[in-house]
Amino acid sequence: MIKYKDVEKAKERIKDYIYHTPLEKSMNLSYEDTNIYLKLENQQKMRCAKIRGALSKMTSLTMEEKEKGVAAISSGNHGAAVSYASNLLGIKNVTIYVPKTTPKSKVEKIEYYGAEVVKLGKNYDEAHELGLKEIEEESKTFIDPCSDKVVLAGQGTIAMEILEENPHIDTIIVPIGGGGIITGISVAAKAIKKDIEIIGLQTAACPAMVAALRDEVFYEVYESEDSICDALVGGVGHIPYKMAASQIDDIIEVEEEDIKDAVKHLILEEKIIAEPAGAIGVGAIKKNPKRFKGKNVAVVLTGGNIDKELMLDLINID
Amino acid sequence: MIKYKDVEKAKERIKDYIYHTPLEKSMNLSYEDTNIYLKLENQQKMRCAKIRGALSKMTSLTMEEKEKGVAAISSGNHGAAVSYASNLLGIKNVTIYVPKTTPKSKVEKIEYYGAEVVKLGKNYDEAHELGLKEIEEESKTFIDPCSDKVVLAGQGTIAMEILEENPHIDTIIVPIGGGGIITGISVAAKAIKKDIEIIGLQTAACPAMVAALRDEVFYEVYESEDSICDALVGGVGHIPYKMAASQIDDIIEVEEEDIKDAVKHLILEEKIIAEPAGAIGVGAIKKNPKRFKGKNVAVVLTGGNIDKELMLDLINID
Repeated sequence: MIKYKDVEKAKERIKDYIYHTPLEKSMNLSYEDTNIYLKLENQQKMRCAKIRGALSKMTSLTMEEKEKGVAAISSGNHGAAVSYASNLLGIKNVTIYVPKTTPKSKVEKIEYYGAEVVKLGKNYDEAHELGLKEIEEESKTFIDPCSDKVVLAGQGTIAMEILEENPHIDTIIVPIGGGGIITGISVAAKAIKKDIEIIGLQTAACPAMVAALRDEVFYEVYESEDSICDALVGGVGHIPYKMAASQIDDIIEVEEEDIKDAVKHLILEEKIIAEPAGAIGVGAIKKNPKRFKGKNVAVVLTGGNIDKELMLDLINID
Repeated sequence: MIKYKDVEKAKERIKDYIYHTPLEKSMNLSYEDTNIYLKLENQQKMRCAKIRGALSKMTSLTMEEKEKGVAAISSGNHGAAVSYASNLLGIKNVTIYVPKTTPKSKVEKIEYYGAEVVKLGKNYDEAHELGLKEIEEESKTFIDPCSDKVVLAGQGTIAMEILEENPHIDTIIVPIGGGGIITGISVAAKAIKKDIEIIGLQTAACPAMVAALRDEVFYEVYESEDSICDALVGGVGHIPYKMAASQIDDIIEVEEEDIKDAVKHLILEEKIIAEPAGAIGVGAIKKNPKRFKGKNVAVVLTGGNIDKELMLDLINID
């Protein structure tokens, strides 16, 4: 399991490579004695919080490991973050495995920072299975976004920044996909401030962690309905599953319609571009503002990579 | 006139209050050996570069001056920035003068941070004339965005950050309204890197500085055609006018259509929300990419406050 000192060490290693992103009070979402702050990881490098975890792992490698290289399995934020981080750190031997169906624009974004992209498998699960075998054969270090405690420790640095900037925060709300980000955040936040409340957010289209906790089953894969939240569908990670019951105080399921509304609200009212998975917390607050009455809430906007056609659609919804 | 050491002193005073904003390479705008970097002052506090100048002035005041209070004449970014900065610094006696026609949303934004808003005059020029008299009578310190060297020194800190982050930058392009921001930037940039090129940008709807340099006339007011760039219309400031000939290497006039296109490009392709006056540099580059061939260019996006109806219109332009 992860400890706070792992997060502190991660911060020392990564702090010169990442942005200390703003924690901004939202005039629109705050009311009376309820103060809503947005942690703008959508403005992080590569527009994505996951770069922290990737850098945490990659800065912990030995020279020999760096020379053997690193690999990840992801066509999204994590894959691009690993490519970018390798470039920053001068790691040359980098492979990102993606499903054969991955669109050209995503492949190009990963390749831009120097990684080799290998297409295999007809979907993410197949790519994952085949990719893992290849990584093992080539003895590269696998950068696993949800089941590696050094990666998760990197995500925890978000909580350090939030509480350093505003020690009065009493609730942090965080999206849950695999659960890596909330796990890192909860470990750090509760070490710094014992009574802090950590609330997870899942799309109602794929409440894998809700089900895992209810059924006490490690759902490594989980069926999803249609969702605009790429980063929040699928199963949960092993460490997050193990730690969730003791670390997460509550999980809110947010309807897809409310997530769409949140993306639109952020763009038009707050002048902030977040991807749907990153905007989900704003959806939860707008749907039920009373749930957070009297609290100082930090809402982690985990990413800002949104497809332009989707953005146009959501902005123009009545 | 301003000296680099004024900028260095301003940086010491304001650095704990502002964000060191990202300087991000644009994958979309860069090509071959031409590297385009965006200086994201649209992500600055209050979404506006002008906060640097306001804070520079306000942190330089004596206790007595702070108690007498401060005032500004502006319904836009500068007015809101002065209100916000007063709040940060604990200055209580703050008045922002705005024209009677100022919409409620702008008044509320200024009032949110504690300033008193006084409406007077039927347009900006009248508000300015009447406001100046009141400020003098009340012996408050006037925070003048374009003709106060302590304010301009604050704007110069943008150049320090750019060149600290990337010493290879050889061209900085900066919007010109009154000319305060480009003047501060040029003083600092040329002190740090003698041969750096400083290029100004004006909307073709109101090329006041172009005319002032051509005619050798201090155009304190200047007629504007219709423009979506609130912050770039009107005349030039006195110090900027005096310094422009020796400090600015060139000024590009950008058509309103190209500015509209730039706002749209930034939102859809770069996932960045900039106001039209802030986006103008991207318009210049997109219109004529060859102008910057082989250069490492920093484009200062000076602000991110855009009216939501205008944003919707611009995004949906074909």
